[in-house]
Amino acid sequence: MAAPVTVYGPAISPAVARVAACLLEKDVPFQLEAVDMSKGEHKSPSFLKLQPFGQVPAFKDHLTTVFESRAICRYICDQYSDRGNRTLLGRQEDGAVGRAAIEQWIESEGQAFNPPSLAIAFQLTFAPLMGMATDMAVVEQNEEKLAKVLDVYEGRLAESQYFAGDEFTLADLVHMPNTDLLVSKTGKAGLITERKNLSRWWDEVSARPSWKKVVELQSAPRPPRS
Amino acid sequence: MAAPVTVYGPAISPAVARVAACLLEKDVPFQLEAVDMSKGEHKSPSFLKLQPFGQVPAFKDHLTTVFESRAICRYICDQYSDRGNRTLLGRQEDGAVGRAAIEQWIESEGQAFNPPSLAIAFQLTFAPLMGMATDMAVVEQNEEKLAKVLDVYEGRLAESQYFAGDEFTLADLVHMPNTDLLVSKTGKAGLITERKNLSRWWDEVSARPSWKKVVELQSAPRPPRS
Repeated sequence: MAAPVTVYGPAISPAVARVAACLLEKDVPFQLEAVDMSKGEHKSPSFLKLQPFGQVPAFKDHLTTVFESRAICRYICDQYSDRGNRTLLGRQEDGAVGRAAIEQWIESEGQAFNPPSLAIAFQLTFAPLMGMATDMAVVEQNEEKLAKVLDVYEGRLAESQYFAGDEFTLADLVHMPNTDLLVSKTGKAGLITERKNLSRWWDEVSARPSWKKVVELQSAPRPPRS
Repeated sequence: MAAPVTVYGPAISPAVARVAACLLEKDVPFQLEAVDMSKGEHKSPSFLKLQPFGQVPAFKDHLTTVFESRAICRYICDQYSDRGNRTLLGRQEDGAVGRAAIEQWIESEGQAFNPPSLAIAFQLTFAPLMGMATDMAVVEQNEEKLAKVLDVYEGRLAESQYFAGDEFTLADLVHMPNTDLLVSKTGKAGLITERKNLSRWWDEVSARPSWKKVVELQSAPRPPRS
């Protein structure tokens, strides 16, 4: 029987990978459903009902739809609080203060880390796949912006094992898809590996079984259409 | 006696205004503390301990510090769940599904609405204040991006009174500072007022006492240094 949770979009998309990593970490069964973006399926009326901006992933759990990968991750943690990793949004006894220590780094990821890292990955990884030319000026501009963010991260990860303290949380998880793109698919691994603490952090988080499974999903053949 | 909650930064900053609006909506007393950005105070070692990226606002509640305006707003709602407006992150009985309906629009604001609207406001409002030239090509590019987002918002607000349904929530609140800049300070009010439902929404949300107080704070003389 199909799982009640469906993620719509290709696993190679970093936003889809973010949601898949969260579901795997939480041990929530799900299926990936293909969206043929080359045929514009993400702009079809039925897809726009799930995701009004026409972006991947879309997400459905029984009758509930949620969009935006970081909102979907928070939903998975809140809705499945008793499954899998139970501390992705903090320990219950730490309350609002514990959650805020995580939320501030989730927001840093969305506001400061994602824009330049995604711009670099788009130019160096996705543009060539789509037959588009790489704009090296855009790469350089964004590398400069990203380096400043990574310097802050390097300082943070000198103080604590993970972004929000001694435990792996959603603050770490949300950073993983774009970090993997930088390390594995852009030729810009040095941005991470030349920073001692970030490099140590990446070795640790990317060794998690949940992330290894995401990498498998990304290299698997396209899932069948339902 | 000073309130335990301090927001560091000028009220004219949209991110500071976002946090102030949330505190006012939640009826949590706070003080604004000036940060003289022209003197680089936001890059001082003591400020960087509060906010590692050297941006405003920084935020402190007793011994707890939080950064990133949207993370601070979530903290205020979670920590002061029994004060002021109690449904900014949803009704307790609606659980994870209710919160997700709000979180997805908070994330849209951060990911889709904020970048182009802030870029326009920077060019048309803040650059002239800082003696910098306005780059009209940047304004035009971002107006085109923003129009697509606003078209989705217009469709959403044709279906429901507020972003997440029948009640004013944090999903609405986070959009207010940049919307106010567009309407009041950039000469680009038409982006909002020419869209019937967005215009109706803005009239309603900007009439709230909490927002009127934010506008007062923005026009008040700079707060004294503590």
